[in-house]
Amino acid sequence: MYSFNNDYSEGAHPRILQALVESNLQQEIGYGQDSFTNKAVEVLKEKMKSDEVDVHLLVGGTQTNLIAISAFLRPHEAAIAASTGHIFVHETGAIEATGHKVLTVDTENGKLTPDLLQKVLDEHTDEHMVKPRLVYISNSTEIGTIYSKQELELLSAFCQKNNLIFYMDGARLGSALCAKDNDLDLSDFPELLDAFYIGGTKNGALMGEALVIKNDSLKEDFRYHIKQKGAMLAKGRVLGIQFYELFKDNLFFELAEHANKMADRLNIALAEKGYQFLTQSSTNQVFPIFSNEMIAELQKNYQFNIWGKVDNDHFAIRLVTSWATNEEEVEAFIKELK
Amino acid sequence: MYSFNNDYSEGAHPRILQALVESNLQQEIGYGQDSFTNKAVEVLKEKMKSDEVDVHLLVGGTQTNLIAISAFLRPHEAAIAASTGHIFVHETGAIEATGHKVLTVDTENGKLTPDLLQKVLDEHTDEHMVKPRLVYISNSTEIGTIYSKQELELLSAFCQKNNLIFYMDGARLGSALCAKDNDLDLSDFPELLDAFYIGGTKNGALMGEALVIKNDSLKEDFRYHIKQKGAMLAKGRVLGIQFYELFKDNLFFELAEHANKMADRLNIALAEKGYQFLTQSSTNQVFPIFSNEMIAELQKNYQFNIWGKVDNDHFAIRLVTSWATNEEEVEAFIKELK
Amino acid sequence: MYSFNNDYSEGAHPRILQALVESNLQQEIGYGQDSFTNKAVEVLKEKMKSDEVDVHLLVGGTQTNLIAISAFLRPHEAAIAASTGHIFVHETGAIEATGHKVLTVDTENGKLTPDLLQKVLDEHTDEHMVKPRLVYISNSTEIGTIYSKQELELLSAFCQKNNLIFYMDGARLGSALCAKDNDLDLSDFPELLDAFYIGGTKNGALMGEALVIKNDSLKEDFRYHIKQKGAMLAKGRVLGIQFYELFKDNLFFELAEHANKMADRLNIALAEKGYQFLTQSSTNQVFPIFSNEMIAELQKNYQFNIWGKVDNDHFAIRLVTSWATNEEEVEAFIKELK
Amino acid sequence: MYSFNNDYSEGAHPRILQALVESNLQQEIGYGQDSFTNKAVEVLKEKMKSDEVDVHLLVGGTQTNLIAISAFLRPHEAAIAASTGHIFVHETGAIEATGHKVLTVDTENGKLTPDLLQKVLDEHTDEHMVKPRLVYISNSTEIGTIYSKQELELLSAFCQKNNLIFYMDGARLGSALCAKDNDLDLSDFPELLDAFYIGGTKNGALMGEALVIKNDSLKEDFRYHIKQKGAMLAKGRVLGIQFYELFKDNLFFELAEHANKMADRLNIALAEKGYQFLTQSSTNQVFPIFSNEMIAELQKNYQFNIWGKVDNDHFAIRLVTSWATNEEEVEAFIKELK
Repeated sequence: MYSFNNDYSEGAHPRILQALVESNLQQEIGYGQDSFTNKAVEVLKEKMKSDEVDVHLLVGGTQTNLIAISAFLRPHEAAIAASTGHIFVHETGAIEATGHKVLTVDTENGKLTPDLLQKVLDEHTDEHMVKPRLVYISNSTEIGTIYSKQELELLSAFCQKNNLIFYMDGARLGSALCAKDNDLDLSDFPELLDAFYIGGTKNGALMGEALVIKNDSLKEDFRYHIKQKGAMLAKGRVLGIQFYELFKDNLFFELAEHANKMADRLNIALAEKGYQFLTQSSTNQVFPIFSNEMIAELQKNYQFNIWGKVDNDHFAIRLVTSWATNEEEVEAFIKELK
Repeated sequence: MYSFNNDYSEGAHPRILQALVESNLQQEIGYGQDSFTNKAVEVLKEKMKSDEVDVHLLVGGTQTNLIAISAFLRPHEAAIAASTGHIFVHETGAIEATGHKVLTVDTENGKLTPDLLQKVLDEHTDEHMVKPRLVYISNSTEIGTIYSKQELELLSAFCQKNNLIFYMDGARLGSALCAKDNDLDLSDFPELLDAFYIGGTKNGALMGEALVIKNDSLKEDFRYHIKQKGAMLAKGRVLGIQFYELFKDNLFFELAEHANKMADRLNIALAEKGYQFLTQSSTNQVFPIFSNEMIAELQKNYQFNIWGKVDNDHFAIRLVTSWATNEEEVEAFIKELK
Repeated sequence: MYSFNNDYSEGAHPRILQALVESNLQQEIGYGQDSFTNKAVEVLKEKMKSDEVDVHLLVGGTQTNLIAISAFLRPHEAAIAASTGHIFVHETGAIEATGHKVLTVDTENGKLTPDLLQKVLDEHTDEHMVKPRLVYISNSTEIGTIYSKQELELLSAFCQKNNLIFYMDGARLGSALCAKDNDLDLSDFPELLDAFYIGGTKNGALMGEALVIKNDSLKEDFRYHIKQKGAMLAKGRVLGIQFYELFKDNLFFELAEHANKMADRLNIALAEKGYQFLTQSSTNQVFPIFSNEMIAELQKNYQFNIWGKVDNDHFAIRLVTSWATNEEEVEAFIKELK
Repeated sequence: MYSFNNDYSEGAHPRILQALVESNLQQEIGYGQDSFTNKAVEVLKEKMKSDEVDVHLLVGGTQTNLIAISAFLRPHEAAIAASTGHIFVHETGAIEATGHKVLTVDTENGKLTPDLLQKVLDEHTDEHMVKPRLVYISNSTEIGTIYSKQELELLSAFCQKNNLIFYMDGARLGSALCAKDNDLDLSDFPELLDAFYIGGTKNGALMGEALVIKNDSLKEDFRYHIKQKGAMLAKGRVLGIQFYELFKDNLFFELAEHANKMADRLNIALAEKGYQFLTQSSTNQVFPIFSNEMIAELQKNYQFNIWGKVDNDHFAIRLVTSWATNEEEVEAFIKELK
């Protein structure tokens, strides 16, 4: 049984474990103020070509989203997300639990646009409704699509004009940046966004997300929020060591490239065999549409997510690849396709 | 420079890292439903001699406290803690951030008693005040003391009689259970408490706390709360592997014994040299009182926490030992004492 | 300029003011434990033919909704509402501010059905999503429609079967119960619902809503929640006096009948003159569709709410009548219609 | 049986009821944007000699405190109060329910001082603790004492220097301003404070507190918070009419003077008869110490609050006078004293 269920089925890239082992007995200060975290932050700033950002290493995606959003917003302010957005659907009301509504718009491909945002603003006009204040996007999105540089520029300009905080969930940012059709670079994000995070968990780390805050007005006292939400690791070194290892050279990108290459192999083979897709993804999530019989057959040897019903006889499934995906298993899977 | 600053200055016990390395490429289900977590829960139940508990592996202490307390209480209910309690002082208002007041009582030694609790109940009599509902203790306490079995039995009976949820913060439970004057066993806690946690972070793990829920009425839907508060690790295996390694034999206790032995060595040497202590601790935190000059001298070669002012010329400091404390460094420190 | 803007443009029915004046210097206990509140609760129980309900007099609708829902739900639980529901749209995120998500479904006429609820349950299956737990309906709805007894019975059975709390916002319950096509009685609600409120503000009181709790498991400690949310009036007598006056005879229903009669007059006249309606309302809100020119003309002498765009040349407006609506003004308005 | 239990045992001053009756059928816009509220705000600004304040009319004291404090603070920030402070003791955790800790200091007379505040600041030094940000005082205090102008000036300077928001609960501000030893004027408060409220409920209104915000940075979007917390009255006119009546001439002060005069009569008579007092109050709350037998005797004809135990044979009681207190009843009470 091989799993294409997600990109967190295995542990960490061996180099990361090796780094943990090598540094293990070195004494360090706690709570993210250790020398490894400092080094990780430095290399991240270099990759982003920006000295003006604050970087905080956190443990997981939901945690990062809820801390950032609750720290950034006042009580009456709301986030806007695609109705497929992770914060709206799959975080057990984490944002609402901090007191904030998540407003949503339906999208074609998981991506927000200025027009969609304008509609939300038009509907929220007075104090009987929440005040839309933060725009939440995911890149890559929950359905595998990515934003182009122009799309982000338009959103960024719209946010600036309308006093909206522009925030990006980068749980799968590695895969987005290594997609064939990507034209963005890590250094673009501090230019375009108020805050975003770079996902480690789904790209080779044991756990860890690097939250980047560019907007000065959002930086003050941020460590208080981390602590209050239970996210300040006593052994913060564990995150520092991992992010330093991922970014001291190009490991982070190499791992994402492997994941995308495996997804690409699946995409091409599936298309050649005539299968349809739910969404056009150039990242590490592939959404082919299969007949019920086909799914039952594949489930004998493979784990994957049943994504959604297409018609009575067909479902879309989700195949996820990662830094650890075995190329031979991908080929074996393809052979099983009729 | 050697640090007695805390019990989380190093990484993890080498056996734990080894276990992470060996299991690394095994594919597992995410979110704490992997085979390692299952095995860890099983060995923990064996050590507690109880099949009637739910066990959840979480990342850190503040996180565990805030999830448990907010899941257990209704909005108008409050926790009672010693005024030295971690949830009152050192969690940046994490409990209040979930909507609940923390009521406090001053104690002599960091420990609650039925009499102290009764006083709080007597003062909270109607709906213009919060309703005290949960009793929070730490064992060992924030100042190194431990509860005896009889003390816990009295508190447990008081809580049961007064419909109070009895909860224990076990961030340093290992050290408490290995103290010379301890008469409690892991299997006692499910008998005496509604819920408690067994701390991994401060006893050899990279991170991790095992929350144990005994009271059936507190178990329902608990995983929703974990997810909502951003504490559900995608690679939950990381916690499962660590707790299995700590408890599959007696590693957890061996590590605490080493920490206590090192603290004991400090206690005896300090007493022999005539130093006074702020509190009588039999666990891995030692609180000697030093003159200002002595502190300045020691700070040249050692890191430790300045705990509190005793008089104009003296401060209490805190020395913390751990599984990783180097015996030679302890002896060297002792030699520096006049 | 005459206003059909809402049903709270005037003060209170004169009998209510008279009752306030007459009782003014009588000394009473505070916080809703006065003799007037007791009498009000008694007459309400008589009208509901139920001794098994708790009744709490509160100040406003948003306040009542947020206290009830936050008291009834655990942190991970969510309310389900129509997407036109007041708690979703017009309460500035009051429910989310207490930590709870509001899930919505689109409806044809502002009313929920078991099928619509089943769809929400089907989509919320595990701990990565909130747990739907409370069903929020309004009667009359935000767009003037009402529930039949059979519709409520079906919803009630569905809720019971699926362990859902069934809650009704009765801000305009008086108008609903006096509608021509209504077949419900005050005494039906404790049979069908877990909790609901009877609106005073929009039916002749200065302010005030009577929250009724039938489900025993929701009653405990409720006054704590009222106090905590700032809703416990020092001079609770002010609410008691008003509700006693409204319900000691049939004043409450007489006032609603007048409001409905005025709305009915508008409905008939508008239909006779060939106007279309956005929704078919038999209560005190009327939603005719007018041309832009017509609206501009009417606005010279009348205030009303522009409800929504129908096409480039037409908008739906909302005309609201009340206990205080002047019949001559209604006739004058009708005469202005082409 | 006559009640000295509190200052909200009766309804409203007759002029207020008269004003409600006279304006009753005038149509007005809802939600505090009516002409009466506008007039009330104007006369309040005149009395405060300030055009730079925002004034919001709210319903009750707990409600006002929780809305103001939750709107003013970010999630990690805390209020500082005397341990006798209403927000700490008697609001059922209302502030904590909005996510904020209330830090307390013990005081001699219910009043904060710069020294006491400095101690709190000294103890809160990093992100492991909440950040003290708002200073909460009551004037008059919960035990009847008042602040002098110099005391407020010192606190104000301290707050400004330490970036603390200075907030005053004025539930009994009328009585404070009419005390014999008072040297403050309504126009002083906008100079000295960031925000405060002027209490109507305890000084002749049916209900109502006027929140005044001077600090520009606290003004933005405040009406959103009022709505979100369920405090925006549909018939906001009810508050506007009352505050206009209280402040269009000197009614507010005349009512407080009567209350103080009655309290003064009690103070003098009690002192003459040799009774001790728990606190020296020059406002409308008097705290004599009586023997148990004396209390039992008085309770036959009078209601009052048993405040606290002094010794086994004596308790302090609280006698509260108001605008409505009957002078003959005061004299009759005095005659009953031995």
